[in-house]
Amino acid sequence: MNNLDKRPTILITNDDGVTAPGIRSLIEAVKDLGHILVVAPDKPQSGMGHAITIGHPLRMNQVNLFEGIESWQVSGTPVDCVKLAVDKLLHRRPDICLSGINHGANHSINVIYSGTMSAAMEASIESIPSIGFSLMDYSMEADFSAAQKVVREVVEQVLGSKPDEHFLLNVNIPSVPYELLRGIKVCRQAYAKYREEFDERRDPHGRKYYWLTGEFINMDSGEDTDVWALQNNYVSVVPVSIDFTDYKTKNRLEGWWKKELTA
Amino acid sequence: MNNLDKRPTILITNDDGVTAPGIRSLIEAVKDLGHILVVAPDKPQSGMGHAITIGHPLRMNQVNLFEGIESWQVSGTPVDCVKLAVDKLLHRRPDICLSGINHGANHSINVIYSGTMSAAMEASIESIPSIGFSLMDYSMEADFSAAQKVVREVVEQVLGSKPDEHFLLNVNIPSVPYELLRGIKVCRQAYAKYREEFDERRDPHGRKYYWLTGEFINMDSGEDTDVWALQNNYVSVVPVSIDFTDYKTKNRLEGWWKKELTA
Repeated sequence: MNNLDKRPTILITNDDGVTAPGIRSLIEAVKDLGHILVVAPDKPQSGMGHAITIGHPLRMNQVNLFEGIESWQVSGTPVDCVKLAVDKLLHRRPDICLSGINHGANHSINVIYSGTMSAAMEASIESIPSIGFSLMDYSMEADFSAAQKVVREVVEQVLGSKPDEHFLLNVNIPSVPYELLRGIKVCRQAYAKYREEFDERRDPHGRKYYWLTGEFINMDSGEDTDVWALQNNYVSVVPVSIDFTDYKTKNRLEGWWKKELTA
Repeated sequence: MNNLDKRPTILITNDDGVTAPGIRSLIEAVKDLGHILVVAPDKPQSGMGHAITIGHPLRMNQVNLFEGIESWQVSGTPVDCVKLAVDKLLHRRPDICLSGINHGANHSINVIYSGTMSAAMEASIESIPSIGFSLMDYSMEADFSAAQKVVREVVEQVLGSKPDEHFLLNVNIPSVPYELLRGIKVCRQAYAKYREEFDERRDPHGRKYYWLTGEFINMDSGEDTDVWALQNNYVSVVPVSIDFTDYKTKNRLEGWWKKELTA
């Protein structure tokens, strides 16, 4: 790579795997904005959260999936992909990391389960500005054309703003034609959770096993939330922090352990 | 379980697996404080972050490891354990969830990689007050005797305070004799990261593979951080939020996309 070239280096990853249509849509949307390096999992990694692979080694193989773009598949998690890209391929930090476009929403509490967002969070931890993109359509046949325009608009805005090193956005895009999108809305993470309903079955030997299923429960009607924005056909943009400290509670607990420990 | 009994129901899990000495130490430290239910992974799950198992089914089997205490092992992640315990064993929320005692520290940014803390975070998401405990000693032969006293003191304080439903603490304990602990300090998460250094090797067929290793880098000298507290032989207690919104950045971005989307 030519150091005299001033175009930004853009690392692209995802959690649906390097062959998913969503990552191809993301690459196409931004490929002329900089030098692109693709490093993505070799198989779907949805729900992997911020998992890293420490119990066994990783494989990384170059693939030829995207014309003119250096691309690799990794046997590990989305977080592993970011780590390997920085340490073994780039040997330095890229200017920005883009993750997605995920097949399915990652609003509200999904930020914590999402491999898409975990890759972006890992980049942010490593002082790389980062954005995770998700389309609200789980189908592998989803139409990414509107999402591609949104991606382009968001990435150009962020690159032009000289983002600080921990800049991190969670962007969710309604699955509607571009003309029906009402705009891009900066939001907070809605307070929501899943009500688990494991599907209990018996195998041919009579032993029980369980499939995780669950119902999404939004407990937050705030019009400043990502869930509200998406329900109203806005693109939601939630800035995400990698400092998880609950400062309000911290203040409340300050007096709890003033005394010395008792034996 | 007798509904007339007013003792709290305490769900215990970990990420080192149900056979790890750390979870036994945790159980022993609190077993007379309430009804204990143990649901833990059947094998080590360190570094699993907030992973959930969606691509294959889960197994859950009762084990007889702790005298007089109902205990189960699960084939999935720490987060899966919490979900299964609530949905399939308790059929309601326990009064508190305790995770650990982890073999190894989970201070600063480790909160995001840690299976121990992810189990506690999952409980918090599900409106269960929760605490993750970690001892700063990775050894399976670690001495948990001081940690057990700390656990007891923290759990009694929290249970007595009627914690709200999202109450969540990340507690790290220096690996020193109890007499050398200087107290319990409420802290914020230190700003730290890992510098990755993948160990590149070749298999007998000449193909490369990579082991994840890395050096911990603390970039935060604040005396209000968990890293400072631990370096100074304090137990660190960081209250953790499940709202990841970066509100400062949110305010700054409010003007970015005032206009409508451009086609």
